[in-house]
Amino acid sequence: MNKISETKASAGAAKGKRQPAEAKLAELKYRLLEISDLMAAEALLDWDQSTYMPGGGAPARARQSATLSRLAHEKSVDPALGDLLDALAPYGAGLPYESDEASLIRVARRDFEKAIKLPSDYVVRASELRSASYNAWTRARPGNDFVSMVPFLEKAVDLSREYAGFFAPYQHVADPLIDAADEGMTTVAIRSLFAELRRELIPLVRAISAQPMTGDDCLHGSFSEQEQLEFSLAVVKRFGYDLERGRLDKTHHPFCTKFSSGDVRITTRVDENYFGDALFSTMHESGHALYEQGVAAAFEGTPLGSGTSAGVHESQSRLWENVVGRSRVFWEHFFPALRDAFPDQFRQIGFETFYRAINKVQRSLIRTDADEVTYNLHIMMRFDLELDLLEGHLRVKDLPEAWRARMQADLGLAPTDDRDGCLQDVHWYAGSVGGGFQSYTIGNILSAQFYAVALASNPDIPREIAKGEFGTLHGWLQKQLYQHGRKFCPTELVMRATGGPMSTAPYLAYLRSKYGELYRLPTADQAS
Amino acid sequence: MNKISETKASAGAAKGKRQPAEAKLAELKYRLLEISDLMAAEALLDWDQSTYMPGGGAPARARQSATLSRLAHEKSVDPALGDLLDALAPYGAGLPYESDEASLIRVARRDFEKAIKLPSDYVVRASELRSASYNAWTRARPGNDFVSMVPFLEKAVDLSREYAGFFAPYQHVADPLIDAADEGMTTVAIRSLFAELRRELIPLVRAISAQPMTGDDCLHGSFSEQEQLEFSLAVVKRFGYDLERGRLDKTHHPFCTKFSSGDVRITTRVDENYFGDALFSTMHESGHALYEQGVAAAFEGTPLGSGTSAGVHESQSRLWENVVGRSRVFWEHFFPALRDAFPDQFRQIGFETFYRAINKVQRSLIRTDADEVTYNLHIMMRFDLELDLLEGHLRVKDLPEAWRARMQADLGLAPTDDRDGCLQDVHWYAGSVGGGFQSYTIGNILSAQFYAVALASNPDIPREIAKGEFGTLHGWLQKQLYQHGRKFCPTELVMRATGGPMSTAPYLAYLRSKYGELYRLPTADQAS
Repeated sequence: MNKISETKASAGAAKGKRQPAEAKLAELKYRLLEISDLMAAEALLDWDQSTYMPGGGAPARARQSATLSRLAHEKSVDPALGDLLDALAPYGAGLPYESDEASLIRVARRDFEKAIKLPSDYVVRASELRSASYNAWTRARPGNDFVSMVPFLEKAVDLSREYAGFFAPYQHVADPLIDAADEGMTTVAIRSLFAELRRELIPLVRAISAQPMTGDDCLHGSFSEQEQLEFSLAVVKRFGYDLERGRLDKTHHPFCTKFSSGDVRITTRVDENYFGDALFSTMHESGHALYEQGVAAAFEGTPLGSGTSAGVHESQSRLWENVVGRSRVFWEHFFPALRDAFPDQFRQIGFETFYRAINKVQRSLIRTDADEVTYNLHIMMRFDLELDLLEGHLRVKDLPEAWRARMQADLGLAPTDDRDGCLQDVHWYAGSVGGGFQSYTIGNILSAQFYAVALASNPDIPREIAKGEFGTLHGWLQKQLYQHGRKFCPTELVMRATGGPMSTAPYLAYLRSKYGELYRLPTADQAS
Repeated sequence: MNKISETKASAGAAKGKRQPAEAKLAELKYRLLEISDLMAAEALLDWDQSTYMPGGGAPARARQSATLSRLAHEKSVDPALGDLLDALAPYGAGLPYESDEASLIRVARRDFEKAIKLPSDYVVRASELRSASYNAWTRARPGNDFVSMVPFLEKAVDLSREYAGFFAPYQHVADPLIDAADEGMTTVAIRSLFAELRRELIPLVRAISAQPMTGDDCLHGSFSEQEQLEFSLAVVKRFGYDLERGRLDKTHHPFCTKFSSGDVRITTRVDENYFGDALFSTMHESGHALYEQGVAAAFEGTPLGSGTSAGVHESQSRLWENVVGRSRVFWEHFFPALRDAFPDQFRQIGFETFYRAINKVQRSLIRTDADEVTYNLHIMMRFDLELDLLEGHLRVKDLPEAWRARMQADLGLAPTDDRDGCLQDVHWYAGSVGGGFQSYTIGNILSAQFYAVALASNPDIPREIAKGEFGTLHGWLQKQLYQHGRKFCPTELVMRATGGPMSTAPYLAYLRSKYGELYRLPTADQAS
């Protein structure tokens, strides 16, 4: 033992019992595992509530979720955990930045410092509101009953502002909420990003709208639930979604949830009169699931054991749903299989008709049904309305009207009811306003950026996809992104994987190329 | 305030902060609710593991269940809970015995005194074994692989003996295990009860076997899973099982589980080539569920909020499955509906043929398929083998042979493989040996005893059942048994509901009457 480490050991011993770093690290992992187990159990309470729970279970379920949230939070802010992290800081600093142990200590400390800002009673109230509000929303949306959601949404705005307050001072009240989802992003940065994108999207949407409208009649008809689910599952299995470590169920609002590295589940919804909802939702959620299934199993039960941010997560759902799942090469392989699965519905339909139908651009009411080009307009609108609600410039009861006005202005149409308006997304009704939508557009941007780099180093990827093979693409994503879990924060991960910071250029190039061809738009050369 | 209560308050204040009984009671309820929430979450982890969890989730699930068990146990043995119960003892003693509050304090204290005997590490090991062993059994049974279960079963025997040790001294090593399921019962008492029953059952089985064999060909054929589940659900809804507060799923081994008074679920299994398995299992579990749904909602989240013992619980599953569900009057109403649901299968079948088929007595291999008359012989055999394992007279590896020998001796036939032998029941493979089987026979005995008393005070019950109405019977059970939850221990409850102690006489009279008619046996008068 040299002089320096002796000094360190003595300094550690002064605070408490002399304990080697290995023992401290083992204790840290034990404490983190306990928190992870409580959170996994709570995630199961939530999954069950959305899939199979009978209605009568709702009141107790809200309380049970809140209890588990509170216990997990109590353990997350235990001063003994802070002492342990303090004691391990010098040890972590002596390790390579990228090592598993240094990363674990670094991320656990960041989580601890965030968690201690939230009082336990706040965590309980937030969890209770989440369950109660979600449950009310599952009835209010089909009933087109916004009025019944007003008190829930008002509480959600209050709680979100209260959340921000714990992280004061901030530049904008939404910043702490955004940072919770997309570490390092701010309201200012997103406004600038969105403005940049908007400048290009608006003319693109205008140019497409000037072309003859594409039809999607072939997607409407009668498609049995069972067969849609089977086809969807067959596709995502080919992507690489491991059903020994996952499963697919039905819910109001599709999601992906992780209980352990061996149990990452997705949900979808099915419309028996429309082909596409179930399949593309399933592809979308499978992107999230591929990410979570790909996180190194060694990170199980630690704060490193999940995807690094909402935006990077969304890049994977959008990559598999859109960049892959709505591509020409993908359907070169899967269209024959689709015709076999639904012979009556697709026997008479040509490839081009089908391909154009699933990529039809049309200004529409529902975000989750929106095409790739108009989708981001839906997000920008929600993002701005969130800011208005948080800033107090918009009252909750005026939300339906504000929604309709903005829809009219941005997309040239407005919903006749709230079911297809401000009640359509679960996010605000799951108890939190702010920080919940920007990730979708960040995800879109990153999906094209990651794919472009994967393609540059593996030019065979499209030819493989055309054969129904996804191993090279999946392998690149696994190596560059998935395995790292939360070891790297989003900016680090993007830099490592792509060699540069987040950029809208690949995404805009992707949209221009794909939709330029589909809608026979003039190329940049022709236009200039 | 009179002198006495002033003294009490001062005595309380000496121990800590001066606090009125109401505040102490509120704190007690808060602590008990937290324990209840953790146990409900663990119950959901278990339900999910048995219904929908993908195989890859098993290792983490075992750990998560163990963590929740440990946390619930830590909170159950918190000395502060003991102090609170001490402080509330005088308050409880001043209340009427039957009052909710006195009962809560009394039962919580009894639970606390039992819980503090179990070390936390034992609770964790038991929970881990339960998950791991159950999971292995779901593969080992279909694979007829007893050898792979030997280490699990050896651990289960060791853990069960260890459990008993915490309650030493005892008269017999199985007594603490039996008491945990059926409070107040002992090995000696059960041996005596079983001997009494055996004396009457053996000649009854012999007399029936001497008669011409009844056929059950009409129950074999092709019965779609969907239609079996629908018919089963329709029946148990008529019993009074509330599907707003429950649901039915499929599992290897049917069970009933409660997450709250608003969420009591049952599971069943379906054999598409045999009608009866799904329906009678569902009726059986619905009996458990009716009991749990009937517990006063005010007891939610407290130790009073569930059925009082395994034996009383089983009396309800057996009452609804057998005394009601296999009765002539029940099928007078439901046979036409059955014919409508399965016209191809039952169109040609007469009522009497069907009724005799579902009540066919035959010495057979599988406990859960056994008829009412031979069923108890299966239980007695398991009970004796459990005692042999616990006493060390039987080694785990010799269990298959001991099983076959005892089957041959008692029932005149032996399984050719372990799948239909000692691997058939989940109980021992869920981590516990001893105390798990006697409840079934106690349940059979009590089912007839309760029904006889219900009938004596409501002679119209059979006529109502013949009309598909169960309200009077359900109402009597609700009032006499269900609502009380764990307020009364089993002996108290039986005494209150029937006016006497547990007795085998009504059960034996029920069997003699029903099977005497079915098999045209000489009546007692004719025989004498």
